[in-house]
Amino acid sequence: MIAKTPETPYYAVVFTSLGKDIGEDYQNMASEMEKLANVQEGFLGIETAREAIGITVSYWKSLESIKRWKANVDHKIAQDKGRKLWYKSFAVRICKVERDYFFNI
Amino acid sequence: MIAKTPETPYYAVVFTSLGKDIGEDYQNMASEMEKLANVQEGFLGIETAREAIGITVSYWKSLESIKRWKANVDHKIAQDKGRKLWYKSFAVRICKVERDYFFNI
Repeated sequence: MIAKTPETPYYAVVFTSLGKDIGEDYQNMASEMEKLANVQEGFLGIETAREAIGITVSYWKSLESIKRWKANVDHKIAQDKGRKLWYKSFAVRICKVERDYFFNI
Repeated sequence: MIAKTPETPYYAVVFTSLGKDIGEDYQNMASEMEKLANVQEGFLGIETAREAIGITVSYWKSLESIKRWKANVDHKIAQDKGRKLWYKSFAVRICKVERDYFFNI
């Protein structure tokens, strides 16, 4: 779903990936990581879609909350598996959301 | 594909949408808008995926180039059609990309 985020400024991590082996194992991990992200301090929401490429945008209160999530032990294991097994390539972009507007949200 | 962007900082527009009538007419417009965006001054790249929701991230050199694209006449027509016909709801987030990192890109 479309994330309901607070007033700007807040932060976004745009994760864009090209998969090489996106199967059940991957789907389970993605679902686990989303649940785990949800209980992290500073987590604000997540949006995801996969077609030719996958795009996941997660929203965070601060750069510090993003740093802590990046260093989370279970997330680290998933990141390693991602590099070894699941992704052909990916890009991570850390962004400050400066303005936003909504239609029917 | 995953966009090849220059060194940070640059800007991203994260457009997340829930469609109500995403058919051929919509696909044609989306394809036209992508072509048109590609020739705008300051355009750096675009990434898109649609599943339960659609996510399109476009990258731009500056806030000014984003403002000009928002005000582009053909794009304005597409925006109006989007509100009237294609989208149930959407979110637009204007972001400054502060850091990025890449794997195999």
